Amino acid sequence: MTMIRAEIRTGAYYDSAFLMQLQRSMAGLPGVQDAGVVMGTESNKEILAHIDLLPAEARAAKPDDLVVVVRADDAASAEAALGQLEELLTRKKSRIEQEYRPQSVETAAQMLPEAEWVLVSVAGRYAAGVARNALRLNKHVFLFSDNVSVEEEIELKKISSEKGLLVMGPDCGTAIIRGIGLGFANKVRLGPIGVVAAAGTGLQQVSSRIHQLGSGITYGIGTGGRDLSEKIGAVTFRQGLELLSRDQETKVIVMVSKPPAPKVAEEVLRAARQAGKPVVVNFIGRTRGTKQLDNLYFATSLDDAARLAVELAAAPEVKKGSADAGRKLERFAPGQRYLRGLFSGGTLAYEAQYILQDYLPQVYANAPLNKENKLPNSLVSQAHSIVDLGEDEFTVGRLHPMMDNEMRIRRLMEEAADPQVAVIMLDVVIGYGSHPDPASELAPAIEKAKKLAQKNGRYLEVVAVVTGTDEDPQNLENQIQQLKAEGVWVETSNDKMVRYAGEILRALDQPTGGQLPEGWKQVSLPSLQRPTAGINVGLESFAENLAAQAATVIQVDWRPPAGGNERLMAILARMKK
Amino acid sequence: MTMIRAEIRTGAYYDSAFLMQLQRSMAGLPGVQDAGVVMGTESNKEILAHIDLLPAEARAAKPDDLVVVVRADDAASAEAALGQLEELLTRKKSRIEQEYRPQSVETAAQMLPEAEWVLVSVAGRYAAGVARNALRLNKHVFLFSDNVSVEEEIELKKISSEKGLLVMGPDCGTAIIRGIGLGFANKVRLGPIGVVAAAGTGLQQVSSRIHQLGSGITYGIGTGGRDLSEKIGAVTFRQGLELLSRDQETKVIVMVSKPPAPKVAEEVLRAARQAGKPVVVNFIGRTRGTKQLDNLYFATSLDDAARLAVELAAAPEVKKGSADAGRKLERFAPGQRYLRGLFSGGTLAYEAQYILQDYLPQVYANAPLNKENKLPNSLVSQAHSIVDLGEDEFTVGRLHPMMDNEMRIRRLMEEAADPQVAVIMLDVVIGYGSHPDPASELAPAIEKAKKLAQKNGRYLEVVAVVTGTDEDPQNLENQIQQLKAEGVWVETSNDKMVRYAGEILRALDQPTGGQLPEGWKQVSLPSLQRPTAGINVGLESFAENLAAQAATVIQVDWRPPAGGNERLMAILARMKK
Repeated sequence: MTMIRAEIRTGAYYDSAFLMQLQRSMAGLPGVQDAGVVMGTESNKEILAHIDLLPAEARAAKPDDLVVVVRADDAASAEAALGQLEELLTRKKSRIEQEYRPQSVETAAQMLPEAEWVLVSVAGRYAAGVARNALRLNKHVFLFSDNVSVEEEIELKKISSEKGLLVMGPDCGTAIIRGIGLGFANKVRLGPIGVVAAAGTGLQQVSSRIHQLGSGITYGIGTGGRDLSEKIGAVTFRQGLELLSRDQETKVIVMVSKPPAPKVAEEVLRAARQAGKPVVVNFIGRTRGTKQLDNLYFATSLDDAARLAVELAAAPEVKKGSADAGRKLERFAPGQRYLRGLFSGGTLAYEAQYILQDYLPQVYANAPLNKENKLPNSLVSQAHSIVDLGEDEFTVGRLHPMMDNEMRIRRLMEEAADPQVAVIMLDVVIGYGSHPDPASELAPAIEKAKKLAQKNGRYLEVVAVVTGTDEDPQNLENQIQQLKAEGVWVETSNDKMVRYAGEILRALDQPTGGQLPEGWKQVSLPSLQRPTAGINVGLESFAENLAAQAATVIQVDWRPPAGGNERLMAILARMKK
Repeated sequence: MTMIRAEIRTGAYYDSAFLMQLQRSMAGLPGVQDAGVVMGTESNKEILAHIDLLPAEARAAKPDDLVVVVRADDAASAEAALGQLEELLTRKKSRIEQEYRPQSVETAAQMLPEAEWVLVSVAGRYAAGVARNALRLNKHVFLFSDNVSVEEEIELKKISSEKGLLVMGPDCGTAIIRGIGLGFANKVRLGPIGVVAAAGTGLQQVSSRIHQLGSGITYGIGTGGRDLSEKIGAVTFRQGLELLSRDQETKVIVMVSKPPAPKVAEEVLRAARQAGKPVVVNFIGRTRGTKQLDNLYFATSLDDAARLAVELAAAPEVKKGSADAGRKLERFAPGQRYLRGLFSGGTLAYEAQYILQDYLPQVYANAPLNKENKLPNSLVSQAHSIVDLGEDEFTVGRLHPMMDNEMRIRRLMEEAADPQVAVIMLDVVIGYGSHPDPASELAPAIEKAKKLAQKNGRYLEVVAVVTGTDEDPQNLENQIQQLKAEGVWVETSNDKMVRYAGEILRALDQPTGGQLPEGWKQVSLPSLQRPTAGINVGLESFAENLAAQAATVIQVDWRPPAGGNERLMAILARMKK
């Protein structure tokens, strides 16, 4: 008859590699069918219950308790197996040759002063403390541990950005520093591509595919999956992007992440545009309507990102948008920077907002893409605004703006009077049903608007899409010519018209200053270029891997401070500050 | 001194074209600087206030009141202008030649029995009633009016789908029926492309661009902007798609909309895949990671949609996915249809879910793309599921699944025992840090799983992505060969592996039955092919436009039923049912 027996050891700490070895040893003992060896967290107990390895006596185990369960052929075998536990617990062995094992990061740093890196993979609740120590010693941190709080991550990254150090993680699986992998990493040849990734296996897939395609990478900077959340604000990601921009050996940059917080994505993309080299973007699931924007190239999958990067690395000229030459920004007065779109067509207004995401951080609208961008008052524009004059609030008992230009002309004059307005965007939709000759009313109004701006020392760019055909009653060409005569930039494609305006607006809206926010220090490139040397705290296999890659490494014989006693730990931490 | 004077006429009804004419006439009178003539809704009063045309006496006006305001040089001019109001109000004139003007849709239908269409552009609160009448008379409805309630739209579309009639709208701007435009429409030549659009100016931009590129359209079916919301469920859109699939002259279909409700988008795309001809999709702002899926082609802008459609119309062969030949669906037992993905890499699991959106309506996960797809219990799969075994709930005090295969192998055997499972998806991530030879443990487990399925008369497809390089300690090729020896479909690109599985799963998951939901009647193609004849209720310019296009039209001299008295209207409506 099958017997299940469990033993609980209170307050014991063992790392997870050791627990796996122990479980395998127990499962291999005579008469044992299955064994479970885990720390007694809720989720671990659920897993044990699911595989029928949670007897009543194990149910009360706490997260700090070691739970050992065996299912055996009979009671004697079960007892015998648990009887061996003590011996197995002391039989821990290591494959690292190291004469003396320091017990703290501080001592390790004295033993190996050239170490630029501290690798941390201890249990989550201890990890921030170790990382803080490492930063105090001016080391970059590879923080593999998960279950680290957001507040701790914020604190660590505030310190690291001010000191010009990297905190990769928490929950960072992968990094590659000039051919040497930290954590989980593939052996990828050195080459011209730098990767920054908030996605561990994303970085592995992209770097492996780059290698398979015959190219290689300079750095693979992991950031941890939470780095591009609004709370963290992409600290490590932006540091990585900036250092890859500066690194002469990196010809192409690849950015990989699950969809970032929209605001953060916008900031990162703006920074990427200043990189001065091609940047391939794969924010999985957050695709763009366009494949390329200046130096940014949008990939559709990890695989596609690798392929694009390899292609670009072979011919890394940064292509410029075609509208570049025609911008003539000097025509605008200082302070002119905003767009005002006055549409009669709802879909055209909607598509315009969608495309403008590629150029501007925020565009308000009365019918916005998302609620945050809703104009408080449809009658009053603010910053960049797109107004659909065909929306219900304008059309109750009133003719549609495609039939009646009056509302739009009134609004056009209001916008032209605003000294911050640089570009006015219009759609002219002709065809049956529409006004018999809209340009005949709009063109004189545009002339007036442009003159008003000119009188005040400004230049007003007016752009328009004319939608229609040569067989329409109004005649497409005739409408276009009337508008062009007043200096309007006219397209028949809404896409093209919006992108033309987008280029101008983005140029007027360029951020000043460097790529890094104020108060941040650049990460020192030489600190990354020296032969990799590291201090490993936690999983010994990470030290073994560094040794296997001919990197220098020292393993810390780490135990929780104050024997894992939380109150004592807090006191110790305060004393160090 | 400038004087502002207003006059209010209670309970008067005038259409918006007439109001515009009246406003222009007033503004042209001697001494008048500006004039406003609107129905007294809140938004109209706001607009008047914004342009300084809302004196105190006009503030109390109600939505049913006609508000006439003039700003004049002096009191005498203002009074004189308002004095002419009565005469101007009666001077309404028409450009339509029509001997007798019926006062109801019923009478009009008797006068012009060949009319298949009723065009409705009366004020929103009356529009549903007119449309209901038209459906009762078995007419298609072009419903231009906005401000129609969702409940009314649901009711109208229930009737129309059961009768095989189209209700285009409410708030439908545009339709083109074999060269004849209803509402706002461009003159577009006849050609091989059919368009269905929940976007008025979207349809105009796409059809105009198609014309400009030298091609043309069969039908442009407008649906109204709300049709693809979850409440309406794409009734008209699906009717349009189905009739374009059936129409022999339509070689390529274009679908245009703002982003639909995700569920509705999924239904529409599934229906589109059964169209048997290429379908170009532009759900503005809802882009896909792929450019093509079988017969679906995803466009990045309205302009791009037109270009793609014209190209495809020149060579309309429906391309098939490359995995098509290798599917061998007959190997699976009836009932086998689900995917179970067991990942060690979080980003790979995430990308897999993202790509599977192209193939499956819903995939559950412990780390899902969005909350609705969250697995209630990470330990138990359901339907299509993707489990990331590297998530926190699996890794507290436990080795990462890239180091330790035990959890995954246990789970693999559980999934293999489920008779509904058809495909198991794995990632094998090698490199430093990972298990020294994962395939040596996974391959025997896969063999066992496949045999278990076989013993029970089933076939189990196992697919895997192996991420790594030829220089990794485990060696990429060696891992691949061990897996292939057990019949695993192996790729080094996650994208390719997922798409291979997606093709199989989609084929197993094919809906049975036709393109239309049960209880719906097909729209009669002959009813659309006969020369267009229509009954117009509302804006006379729509009747004028039909006449200008040599279509037969009859204008109804419409007045609100029961003089606009809401209670009487409700009684009348009940009597007709």
